[in-house]
Amino acid sequence: MDIRRYTILIHCPDQKGIIAGVTDFIHKSKGNIEYIDQYVDRTHNHFFMRIEVAFDHKQFFWSGFQEEMNSQLGRPYNMQLEFYDQAQTPKMAVFISKYDHCLYDLLALQQSGKLNCEIPFVLSNHTDLKFIADQFNIPFIHVPVDPADKQKAAQKQLELLAEHQVDFVVLARYMQIIHPEVIEAYPSKIINIHHSFLPAFPGAKPYHTAYDRGVKIIGATSHYVTEELDAGPIIEQDVVRVSHAHEVQDFIRLGRDLERLVLMRAVELHTKRKVLVMNNKTVVFT
Amino acid sequence: MDIRRYTILIHCPDQKGIIAGVTDFIHKSKGNIEYIDQYVDRTHNHFFMRIEVAFDHKQFFWSGFQEEMNSQLGRPYNMQLEFYDQAQTPKMAVFISKYDHCLYDLLALQQSGKLNCEIPFVLSNHTDLKFIADQFNIPFIHVPVDPADKQKAAQKQLELLAEHQVDFVVLARYMQIIHPEVIEAYPSKIINIHHSFLPAFPGAKPYHTAYDRGVKIIGATSHYVTEELDAGPIIEQDVVRVSHAHEVQDFIRLGRDLERLVLMRAVELHTKRKVLVMNNKTVVFT
Amino acid sequence: MDIRRYTILIHCPDQKGIIAGVTDFIHKSKGNIEYIDQYVDRTHNHFFMRIEVAFDHKQFFWSGFQEEMNSQLGRPYNMQLEFYDQAQTPKMAVFISKYDHCLYDLLALQQSGKLNCEIPFVLSNHTDLKFIADQFNIPFIHVPVDPADKQKAAQKQLELLAEHQVDFVVLARYMQIIHPEVIEAYPSKIINIHHSFLPAFPGAKPYHTAYDRGVKIIGATSHYVTEELDAGPIIEQDVVRVSHAHEVQDFIRLGRDLERLVLMRAVELHTKRKVLVMNNKTVVFT
Amino acid sequence: MDIRRYTILIHCPDQKGIIAGVTDFIHKSKGNIEYIDQYVDRTHNHFFMRIEVAFDHKQFFWSGFQEEMNSQLGRPYNMQLEFYDQAQTPKMAVFISKYDHCLYDLLALQQSGKLNCEIPFVLSNHTDLKFIADQFNIPFIHVPVDPADKQKAAQKQLELLAEHQVDFVVLARYMQIIHPEVIEAYPSKIINIHHSFLPAFPGAKPYHTAYDRGVKIIGATSHYVTEELDAGPIIEQDVVRVSHAHEVQDFIRLGRDLERLVLMRAVELHTKRKVLVMNNKTVVFT
Repeated sequence: MDIRRYTILIHCPDQKGIIAGVTDFIHKSKGNIEYIDQYVDRTHNHFFMRIEVAFDHKQFFWSGFQEEMNSQLGRPYNMQLEFYDQAQTPKMAVFISKYDHCLYDLLALQQSGKLNCEIPFVLSNHTDLKFIADQFNIPFIHVPVDPADKQKAAQKQLELLAEHQVDFVVLARYMQIIHPEVIEAYPSKIINIHHSFLPAFPGAKPYHTAYDRGVKIIGATSHYVTEELDAGPIIEQDVVRVSHAHEVQDFIRLGRDLERLVLMRAVELHTKRKVLVMNNKTVVFT
Repeated sequence: MDIRRYTILIHCPDQKGIIAGVTDFIHKSKGNIEYIDQYVDRTHNHFFMRIEVAFDHKQFFWSGFQEEMNSQLGRPYNMQLEFYDQAQTPKMAVFISKYDHCLYDLLALQQSGKLNCEIPFVLSNHTDLKFIADQFNIPFIHVPVDPADKQKAAQKQLELLAEHQVDFVVLARYMQIIHPEVIEAYPSKIINIHHSFLPAFPGAKPYHTAYDRGVKIIGATSHYVTEELDAGPIIEQDVVRVSHAHEVQDFIRLGRDLERLVLMRAVELHTKRKVLVMNNKTVVFT
Repeated sequence: MDIRRYTILIHCPDQKGIIAGVTDFIHKSKGNIEYIDQYVDRTHNHFFMRIEVAFDHKQFFWSGFQEEMNSQLGRPYNMQLEFYDQAQTPKMAVFISKYDHCLYDLLALQQSGKLNCEIPFVLSNHTDLKFIADQFNIPFIHVPVDPADKQKAAQKQLELLAEHQVDFVVLARYMQIIHPEVIEAYPSKIINIHHSFLPAFPGAKPYHTAYDRGVKIIGATSHYVTEELDAGPIIEQDVVRVSHAHEVQDFIRLGRDLERLVLMRAVELHTKRKVLVMNNKTVVFT
Repeated sequence: MDIRRYTILIHCPDQKGIIAGVTDFIHKSKGNIEYIDQYVDRTHNHFFMRIEVAFDHKQFFWSGFQEEMNSQLGRPYNMQLEFYDQAQTPKMAVFISKYDHCLYDLLALQQSGKLNCEIPFVLSNHTDLKFIADQFNIPFIHVPVDPADKQKAAQKQLELLAEHQVDFVVLARYMQIIHPEVIEAYPSKIINIHHSFLPAFPGAKPYHTAYDRGVKIIGATSHYVTEELDAGPIIEQDVVRVSHAHEVQDFIRLGRDLERLVLMRAVELHTKRKVLVMNNKTVVFT
């Protein structure tokens, strides 16, 4: 046998018999369901499912299966279906500015094989951190952003993403607002890390405003980028306790570890196809 | 329509087609699966499933369904099946000694309708806390334990549990070891709270030994009681940070909140039939 | 010897030699400093200190000591000084509406001697929870709030607080806005529990808005009440992880445990005189 | 003015007037105390203090001050005193085997200036990770351990540590037991990361035993190395929640992030001289 594994993401309006329908179809296609996660959003009566399925490749045509599933289940149930071959490694572009901690983590994890992705390039609006990309042997591309013509940088970004067939983008403390055209071209495919517990403290300098408010806990939030700033679907959040004795510099220092942890988890969830998006919220199967 | 809801717990050796088999059977029985949780223990190749299913009571016989499912699926797949009618409220006995915090929580939660159970009685080897049971209008039964004849108390306990048709027992800091005969009569039905992060610090005075060891975090563990002390399947654990500045009395004070939280969560999980036990471990569907 | 213990809270503009000045003064007064906590807010150059000191009562006059300290240190250093005799139990009034979980916790903790305070009365704008106060033998006072004349309830509240010499008020999910006159009369003495991670989700229905935003963590915040709603100095916060699978009702259920824990911790900190307030922030010595 | 900052660590048997004595001495020496942390272990009646003090260097002799303090306070109070000039960067050696995650973190933090130390060399009993040290331009030294003659490697280690004037050693998942002679030469100066919540699961393969026990939370512990394996004074611990659905591989994956976080925090505390050791326990001023 030549076993190959695939991931299928499904969502559709909830309706009776849908689980039986899907599992029965896969069973008849000689697939073995290894994991099944399912969730019904009862507020919107919407159904979500993630399946990992193994097939014996010798007697199996992946593209034929997709077509058949779309036709027998997708259309009748009005399903959104996504099919992923687990053998295909996604391509991740990393955008940075001047903060290095998330960059180090992404490159180290990827280099050691713990993050299932390739990194075709690191892009920055500055050149300060080029030496780190060099250190890890990842191409570094400098795309400065002209405040008077932001469209120009966006075009360059789109060209690079297309040229390298990038699957998703990680903003590792990239300090520029992403252009709407780029956002539109990569829906639910641009992952940001914001250094606060959103929706508290959106926008600039969240550690400073958190300090001024006297909070006892600070957080970090990873989310997909949408047009509204810091308002996209949240993938992952985490927090750390602070006290009056911590100054802004301590918030920043403690927050750094949060940011990299939360971003790494979000990127890992994304590469494992464990995140579905609807109504500006995520369903995260863990 | 007269919709009624049931919970079905299933576990059996893992085998191909099992999810499709179960969902198909329920679909054909005109049940609507509202929640499905599933897990495969790949170390032991064992399959676990929890289903919440709704039936239109008018055309449905619950006992007939159970029989049919046992015959069509249970035997062929070698399944352990448990069937629960969600309309039936389980009966919980509470055993205590002299600590009051878990008792207050159980009685307050139950009184306010937040814990889906009845409490036929509170049992204690002391009378110190009788006034609390009185306050909440719950019968209090004093069953002293004679160190020279522990069998006697065990017999009395078994009689009371049988007489009141108790479904499960909660040891809310009950300071006596449960007699093996009682344990045997209520397998995976006696819930204990141990005041440490097991397996660290089993046995007596865990806060003192944790203090002596200089740990930076203390914990509490709720588990089903088995013959080996503090070694039963763990249902829930939680921890709280401590420092050198905390003395043993602070460990005890901070631990109290942990104990009641962890125990309440375990009891709630148990009453919702979300816990399956195998190989001295739990599968907890949340 | 007849040892008695006192707590002294100090804050003043930061200046050189202040710690030596205070410790030296107490040493010369034959006091033994058992705990000293100190903090300098370098943003505002402000100094905070909390001292627990033991005196042999036989040779010691507490009021004389206070006078002397005010004169020798308070005036020269421009200090705010608060003196507390640890033998005096503070009086806490509890305001509630229809939610019972924080009330149960406060009454149970106080009844079991774990909260160092007396409860002269429970006040509510409803009568639903009178039975719980009765159960714990605490006087219950019904003070309805007339939407057309809120001043009237405020006057009644002020009279009751004065008559019973209440030291501080705990709003245990009291669903009315406190009248500015009451707030002004009890500055940094009214403790509220808000069911969100402030400053996220202030105001009404925070669990619903948190659910709509798709957060992965929810929180609770205890703070002193100031005129601006949910914007007073934060005493304590805590959080719990949620997922897409939790509906609003689950947020409310999980939040309940947070609310009571966070409120109990804040009340305990307050009764132990561990909280100082300045610039709408707290210094919490733990 | 030429302000320089120093850290002083003090511990001694507790006695009356000690805080006043120390603060007064520093005040008279024209030092300004910027931070003071103090703790009394009431079980052993032992006093601990950490002071950060600023002096105007022009009129100040650091070695003279140390002598004077030893003579005026150290001897009379039977104090252990440690003096650190904050301008001196400590030297840290890193010992590794084949796991890379802690190494990446240490090198990245140090390279970016966030860890106040120099790294004279990375030492390993294997050569697998040499490329990472190369990448960060840190000398890599291969010291294999001959199972038949462990003394030989220990001698080599001691020579290297002495030659490079190493102040402390970090075992970043170094998979060899440190030789007693090395431990003796560097008391409270060898920091280990153990991949469990000690004292649960000491020794080899803690993730496997934790998995077998069915715990719901796993942890990591950083401690100073003493002769008894995994039994030294704990500096820092942290935990992460797991469930039945996590296999051993998931424990290892989740634990990796814990290990690096906990180790980084411990190393940072050590470099900031915030850790005092006594009776196999730490006092950690944060």
